[in-house]
Amino acid sequence: MKKNIVFIAKSLDGYIAGKDGNLDWLHAIPNPDNDDMGFNGLMSEIDAIVMGRTTFETVVSFGVEWPYTKPVFVLSHTLNDIPEHLENKVFLVRGSLKEVLRIIHEKGWHTLYIDGGQTIQNFLSEGLIDEFRITTIPILLGGGTLLFGELDQSIMLEHITSKVFLNQIVQDHYRVKDIN
Amino acid sequence: MKKNIVFIAKSLDGYIAGKDGNLDWLHAIPNPDNDDMGFNGLMSEIDAIVMGRTTFETVVSFGVEWPYTKPVFVLSHTLNDIPEHLENKVFLVRGSLKEVLRIIHEKGWHTLYIDGGQTIQNFLSEGLIDEFRITTIPILLGGGTLLFGELDQSIMLEHITSKVFLNQIVQDHYRVKDIN
Repeated sequence: MKKNIVFIAKSLDGYIAGKDGNLDWLHAIPNPDNDDMGFNGLMSEIDAIVMGRTTFETVVSFGVEWPYTKPVFVLSHTLNDIPEHLENKVFLVRGSLKEVLRIIHEKGWHTLYIDGGQTIQNFLSEGLIDEFRITTIPILLGGGTLLFGELDQSIMLEHITSKVFLNQIVQDHYRVKDIN
Repeated sequence: MKKNIVFIAKSLDGYIAGKDGNLDWLHAIPNPDNDDMGFNGLMSEIDAIVMGRTTFETVVSFGVEWPYTKPVFVLSHTLNDIPEHLENKVFLVRGSLKEVLRIIHEKGWHTLYIDGGQTIQNFLSEGLIDEFRITTIPILLGGGTLLFGELDQSIMLEHITSKVFLNQIVQDHYRVKDIN
């Protein structure tokens, strides 16, 4: 069964990046034992990752070990090659989202992690998101990049579960139910 | 001890009213036993309510029994009188928020419910909100009036509790911790 999952952190006021792209607030709550808050579970559940160029470049800029254990498809009309150390891990794709999904599904990869603000909004607008796993950091940023954007129609969700991590961070899982 | 509490419902994408002021989605989840989701508890906890004119007029327009059992202070520079049946229940106030609060506190009313989108944003901007009780309806509206607005500085919160109502509606309580 095909499933596209969003797994993302936001502030209580809905931003995925603060002003000037600030991401420091993602670590505002001390996490001494490095609780992964469901990330490793997601990684074992999915077959591949689809992300936008901005997210890809942000992850690369962290300069840390590549965090993904599954193939990553990067949507970009401008990138022509990827860093050498990411060959066989990262693949550039272009075209409509449905074409991109067809290519990935043909490889037998059906459970996908969809990442990146614009990419999530694009998938959502085309009715291509099945599940949200949203982690809310207890902070109001008051500006930046919002997770959600304008929609032509409202979308009804079904609450699956809520969990509190580190006594401070709420993670809510929703299934997309109906597009009205 | 003085405390200003926000108690409000929003969509997952952060709207308190949909496009064209639509509020139908507030009742998207069937509530056969009329679970008040904490409203009556809040009413018994607070001394008075402060709301903006738009919210006041919206509640009046519902044409139902007046839902508040505590005195309601309506912030307005334009209203000059209130409907006769609300006399002794609703009081018009104007001036700075600090002046308004001083008047209410002088009456011995210290635990206040702050309501209305613009009013909440104004109180928040002046560092005058102590607690948020936010009820999230599982819907993406894709447009309308956002609960939160721009802030000069980020505001750190402390998560108090999360509860799920009707198996679908998550309510999160946060205390305002620091203004950065």
